[in-house]
Amino acid sequence: MKNPSSLDFLTEALRRLPGVGPKSAQRIAYHLMQHDREGAALMSRALSEAVERVKHCALCNTFTENEICETCLDTERDATQLCVVETPGDQLMIEQTLTFKGLYFVLMGRLSPLDGIGPKDLHLDKLIARATDGVVTEVVLATNFTNEGEATAHYISETLKTRGLKVSRLARGVPVGGELEYVDAGTIARAMLDRRST
Amino acid sequence: MKNPSSLDFLTEALRRLPGVGPKSAQRIAYHLMQHDREGAALMSRALSEAVERVKHCALCNTFTENEICETCLDTERDATQLCVVETPGDQLMIEQTLTFKGLYFVLMGRLSPLDGIGPKDLHLDKLIARATDGVVTEVVLATNFTNEGEATAHYISETLKTRGLKVSRLARGVPVGGELEYVDAGTIARAMLDRRST
Repeated sequence: MKNPSSLDFLTEALRRLPGVGPKSAQRIAYHLMQHDREGAALMSRALSEAVERVKHCALCNTFTENEICETCLDTERDATQLCVVETPGDQLMIEQTLTFKGLYFVLMGRLSPLDGIGPKDLHLDKLIARATDGVVTEVVLATNFTNEGEATAHYISETLKTRGLKVSRLARGVPVGGELEYVDAGTIARAMLDRRST
Repeated sequence: MKNPSSLDFLTEALRRLPGVGPKSAQRIAYHLMQHDREGAALMSRALSEAVERVKHCALCNTFTENEICETCLDTERDATQLCVVETPGDQLMIEQTLTFKGLYFVLMGRLSPLDGIGPKDLHLDKLIARATDGVVTEVVLATNFTNEGEATAHYISETLKTRGLKVSRLARGVPVGGELEYVDAGTIARAMLDRRST
């Protein structure tokens, strides 16, 4: 007894999803075939459409279906400020805060020597060209506050400062609503060092 | 700033995967577009092929690309024995033990009144027709030993026994390699009640 070959092919293909092993892939395949063929057909269409249409913005490197993304084309935005983020998801989060009106550069990753991701994989040459176009005056580094995100921010900061640009980093400190008892010591130490006069 | 529409469509479609919420769907979509477009294209093909080709065996209800599945067509098998399982995955597990040479009936689920799954959804009429074809003499119930699996076995057993068929159930007891100290009391109680002379 064995599965029909198209089901085996589907199981094998589903293993390309991040974090899905052989058992989960088989369970997902059975689920789709038994309970949600409509969903499976929808996913098939969505995947092929996205593969065909989605590309990277020539200016900020985010996902777009056009040569230049909507954000970069928006003339209402302050082109002197450039915010560097790791992913489009991070960009969305910052946009939701309504605190930044400049433009973005999306790295689509972070420096990670262990995974073999170096400056070239992050298109840092594209970022440097963008930052030194004569319009940008300040680069705001908004990579994650993980070890890799910090290292990435440090690397970019060093590279851009030698070119005479103003480079800043999102503030670190106690989260809004945070109770000191439950915040880790490293965060409190940083908040103490960076304390501000009121 | 917003995602290109084909990326939003993909994120929405990926939410049809079992256990995937909006955040995970977006992360998967970004991952596929950034790191594995080949995998995305492969999955698209596999999904549409499976939707098109996979159907249910007319005899045993399992997945197949033909009218009758390979197992049911196999004349080497003992057609007097019929093993009832919940899923094709369960069938694969039993096949691997090489302890059963009969045929199967795959319920593709279990009775679950809370989820609105009743006897009709499990094609129990198909099972009864198959079991009472005059060839089958014993039905082995191999549904899971969960509450729902046990209830399903009980229901099928009652239905088939009134038709004069021999119905059996996989033995319950201490797993091979099991240490009594770490086995739950219910299992030990069952193993004690079902103890066998040596």
